[in-house]
Amino acid sequence: MSLPFALTPGEPAGIGPDLCLLLAREAQPRALVAIASLALLSERAARLGLDIQLLPVAPSSWPPHPAPAGSLYVWDTPLAAPVVCGQLDKANGAYVLETLRRAGQGCIDGYFAGMITAPVHKGVINEAGIPFSGHTEFLAELTHTEQVVMMLATQGLRVALVTTHLPLREVADAITGPRLQRVARILHKDLVEKFGIARPRILVCGLNPHAGEGGHLGREEIEVIEPALHELRAEGLDLTGPLPADTLFTPKHLEHCDAVLAMYHDQGLPVLKYKGFGAAVNVTLGLPIIRTSVDHGTALDLAGTGRIDTGSLQVALETAYRMQRATSCKPQASS
Amino acid sequence: MSLPFALTPGEPAGIGPDLCLLLAREAQPRALVAIASLALLSERAARLGLDIQLLPVAPSSWPPHPAPAGSLYVWDTPLAAPVVCGQLDKANGAYVLETLRRAGQGCIDGYFAGMITAPVHKGVINEAGIPFSGHTEFLAELTHTEQVVMMLATQGLRVALVTTHLPLREVADAITGPRLQRVARILHKDLVEKFGIARPRILVCGLNPHAGEGGHLGREEIEVIEPALHELRAEGLDLTGPLPADTLFTPKHLEHCDAVLAMYHDQGLPVLKYKGFGAAVNVTLGLPIIRTSVDHGTALDLAGTGRIDTGSLQVALETAYRMQRATSCKPQASS
Repeated sequence: MSLPFALTPGEPAGIGPDLCLLLAREAQPRALVAIASLALLSERAARLGLDIQLLPVAPSSWPPHPAPAGSLYVWDTPLAAPVVCGQLDKANGAYVLETLRRAGQGCIDGYFAGMITAPVHKGVINEAGIPFSGHTEFLAELTHTEQVVMMLATQGLRVALVTTHLPLREVADAITGPRLQRVARILHKDLVEKFGIARPRILVCGLNPHAGEGGHLGREEIEVIEPALHELRAEGLDLTGPLPADTLFTPKHLEHCDAVLAMYHDQGLPVLKYKGFGAAVNVTLGLPIIRTSVDHGTALDLAGTGRIDTGSLQVALETAYRMQRATSCKPQASS
Repeated sequence: MSLPFALTPGEPAGIGPDLCLLLAREAQPRALVAIASLALLSERAARLGLDIQLLPVAPSSWPPHPAPAGSLYVWDTPLAAPVVCGQLDKANGAYVLETLRRAGQGCIDGYFAGMITAPVHKGVINEAGIPFSGHTEFLAELTHTEQVVMMLATQGLRVALVTTHLPLREVADAITGPRLQRVARILHKDLVEKFGIARPRILVCGLNPHAGEGGHLGREEIEVIEPALHELRAEGLDLTGPLPADTLFTPKHLEHCDAVLAMYHDQGLPVLKYKGFGAAVNVTLGLPIIRTSVDHGTALDLAGTGRIDTGSLQVALETAYRMQRATSCKPQASS
């Protein structure tokens, strides 16, 4: 018997519940436990015209096998208020966090093999009075991890970020040598240990246009990034850069790398999502647990319509399974 | 008889001269005048093993017809020092600028229909003691144009920038309502007048990740961008946004737009160059002249090798021709 994976449908008014139900039409290779309101899933299934059998489970009764096609294990987590498709309600902000807490704690406590998350809506959680800047940061805190790394991946391209959900005006000051080094070390280590890549080759973006063009367009490459990379290379990391972001994402460079390290969100993710939209996955590196996520938002306007695609969720699941296998192959490796 | 176009090979130690010579193997639909050192082109042709006949021309003797295959019109512009392939020499910084000045002034004076530029090396020009931040800025000054707009284009995608060659830490303060409005108006006007698009639809990126996510990740969208777009819409511009840059570049959005307006260099150009590398063009909007350029750099290591592709230069030429035709169809339109 292998451990089940936790699946969090996220924002109840969005498409997360729909995705989990659509997925349950087919048998899955691993046992999945959706952590959500049973009433919500039941109602949403009816709205979508899906005949999915919801099978309640709890920490005392984990499923020993994957659920058959047409059924979904659910760890019932009660809503605070009824849900209307597409309408955010801050009353359910705490509910969303409770589903994440259950999934994350279950991974820490060793009764989940990993967790896969559907989108949450950061705004409504904050409006509920709960400071929340994203799944990634939430799980870092829950697992007492000082530094985590957000990486998005699609077929043929992985992009990790040195800074994530930060206003653009704060990015330059946030790119420090120590931060860059912590992130690069985590990226390297997890590519080895969680993705089974023996010697990962990483391309590093500059911060400024044209990677500063020799100092004419900013000096952070010379003063911060290059010295940090120099030290990392001495540790054995295979790093190329800093390279101009607008020419790095071309076959000449990408053919010879396992991941790109971008300095900030909108430098690295537009290309990745352009290349992979509908089939990209968000992976949190540096955690002591396995966590993957879809790469899209709550799509409030599509909740309850059925006009959605489970492609990204499928990739998120497959990536989590792959990471778990790679991790299992290296039982001595610390993570 | 139609006017010739000016073609500047740019940095003499880079691949610009090679590109012009490779292009001259085939007959061109319009007369092209390369503005460069005759000695340089002759030496480079010999190195590349190309039998190209160089035909000297000057302001008193413009060519009435396109050059036949295997020949290239050249307005001889003397170097200050001999050129070694791949080796930058600041002694030739002034030479590079003189070729640009001749091309730009020729467009202003009405004896060139437009100009197409191969790459220059900003660093070596600055090291020569000449402040220079790019073709775009140089031509703005030469033509006394207060605001120009850099736009890159490839098949199916055009991306214009609100800010261009600016260190990242200066970007947020540079995004002001008046600047955004000047840029958007120029983009709209030139799409109409120089590209013949009757009612251009423009997608506008936010500045911050997730376009600020309702103010949680930066307030510039709320305080600067949205009010500026609101006023522009009242003027009749068709603008959608501000949208998150990482989801804007997906078919759902791009299918319904004529151009994307990105806030800064590395937000918009990585996707464009990923999509179009080898076949993208850089267009300067807002000038009273037509100017297009290749989208790549000097590639110093490839100069003299022949292992290069003229794809981007071909697109730059075709775009300049198209712009000239669209402009000719609207003789009353100011530009």
